[in-house]
Amino acid sequence: MMPLTDTSRLCIHTITTKPWPIETAINQYAAVGVQGMTVWRQALEGRDPTQVGHQIREAGLSVVSLCRGGFFPGLDAKSRQAALDDNRRAIDEAAALGAPLVVLVCGAIPGQPLAESRQQIQDGLAAVLPHAASCGVKLGIEPLHPMYADSRSAINTMKQANDMAEALDSPAVGVVVDTYHLWWDPDLPAEIARCGQAGNILAFHISDWRTPTEDLLNDRGLMGDGCIPNAEIRQWVEATGFDGFIEVEIFSDRHWAEDQQSFLEAIKTAYLRFA
Amino acid sequence: MMPLTDTSRLCIHTITTKPWPIETAINQYAAVGVQGMTVWRQALEGRDPTQVGHQIREAGLSVVSLCRGGFFPGLDAKSRQAALDDNRRAIDEAAALGAPLVVLVCGAIPGQPLAESRQQIQDGLAAVLPHAASCGVKLGIEPLHPMYADSRSAINTMKQANDMAEALDSPAVGVVVDTYHLWWDPDLPAEIARCGQAGNILAFHISDWRTPTEDLLNDRGLMGDGCIPNAEIRQWVEATGFDGFIEVEIFSDRHWAEDQQSFLEAIKTAYLRFA
Repeated sequence: MMPLTDTSRLCIHTITTKPWPIETAINQYAAVGVQGMTVWRQALEGRDPTQVGHQIREAGLSVVSLCRGGFFPGLDAKSRQAALDDNRRAIDEAAALGAPLVVLVCGAIPGQPLAESRQQIQDGLAAVLPHAASCGVKLGIEPLHPMYADSRSAINTMKQANDMAEALDSPAVGVVVDTYHLWWDPDLPAEIARCGQAGNILAFHISDWRTPTEDLLNDRGLMGDGCIPNAEIRQWVEATGFDGFIEVEIFSDRHWAEDQQSFLEAIKTAYLRFA
Repeated sequence: MMPLTDTSRLCIHTITTKPWPIETAINQYAAVGVQGMTVWRQALEGRDPTQVGHQIREAGLSVVSLCRGGFFPGLDAKSRQAALDDNRRAIDEAAALGAPLVVLVCGAIPGQPLAESRQQIQDGLAAVLPHAASCGVKLGIEPLHPMYADSRSAINTMKQANDMAEALDSPAVGVVVDTYHLWWDPDLPAEIARCGQAGNILAFHISDWRTPTEDLLNDRGLMGDGCIPNAEIRQWVEATGFDGFIEVEIFSDRHWAEDQQSFLEAIKTAYLRFA
């Protein structure tokens, strides 16, 4: 495999260094040579997205995407409408920030049949697509690990994300590949190839799966600390022609409790060694 | 859907009422009309399996299966040989107990490529199959939820289990369908139908998925306490002709801490209402 020899494609999600206000993250990322930033909406709270976008670019970083929209399913029309409104706001924020992509955690409602949630996701995407297109913002369907099928996403494999992106058939819709969610899937190489062929790979996220994993949400590992073959999956993604950012997205109570400066150095080291 | 109107197909796994010694479980299950018992090997510790089998049948219960064999992958030949030896012992215990089936948690080694673990599982199955066949014991490949792909099973979907069972092509190998592991899979109805058509459905396990799930191993819910459409999945299984036991397998720190007598009553009620 081709090793990564510099940080020119390294992007970090603001949530990865959650204890830092975004202004600190911008400065610290830039200082160690990180080239891209994916902004979580919480990090924008009380701030003007246009202004934050300027700050990021002035520091020499690219705004890679905004996390996150989605959560389309709802038990009634009112909650589904609220989701559409919120997704349009996310698209507006992305446009103001200068982010070319909104990452979607598509949603699921405990007890609502998954097939119904999937239909509501597809309908919701179709409804907000014109607004995204008119803003020049793309929407990225991120398949989530099956352990989130109860309440976070009814889209749990690359195959499902590919099916939906192809059904919507719009240049403004694609797929986000995240190794944490997908590494276990025996169909992953084939579905990544299919996604690339359709021109649908919009982003690539990495982290690691720890053994044992002690929390379903916030126990992700740094690359190399778990069992995910990140470099191998990256090769599958790059074999389709993808040469975009490699985004480090780690939710971890353990790492958030560390000194974030040391953690940032550890991310860079792990990226060069294991990504 | 056809509701269950009596307990004639109700089987409970000894692990579900872990605080009870197996002798207590036998008496209590029988007293409330449970008709089948799946025995976990821990429950046999210090006991003669032949004797325990007699006790179970004398109480009017069927011995449905023995849990569990498997864990075939290993980093070296020695550990893989130890796994074969242990699986042969499990087959012997099942034969002594009078259990027609050994349920397999197939295994995975953190960091070993899943494809390699899958090959080792298939090779391991092929190696112990003759012994199983000569003992009149079947081996059931149980696909495990993808959140266990790091260390418990590299077989994570019905499709993978079907592929492997069909490749081994022996009347002594089949598949165990467990709703906890499989409910999220969009291919589940089709793969259950395929499994039934091949004559490969050997057992059917139920429980529920709680929201939020607070522990990856021991936070399963009682049927009705989560989002798994157990009755719908049962219909898919029965549509293939399956009319065997419906096995309640719940690992739950929460329920193990309860009075087990009340929990047993709750299982029966939940079974009749939601299974």
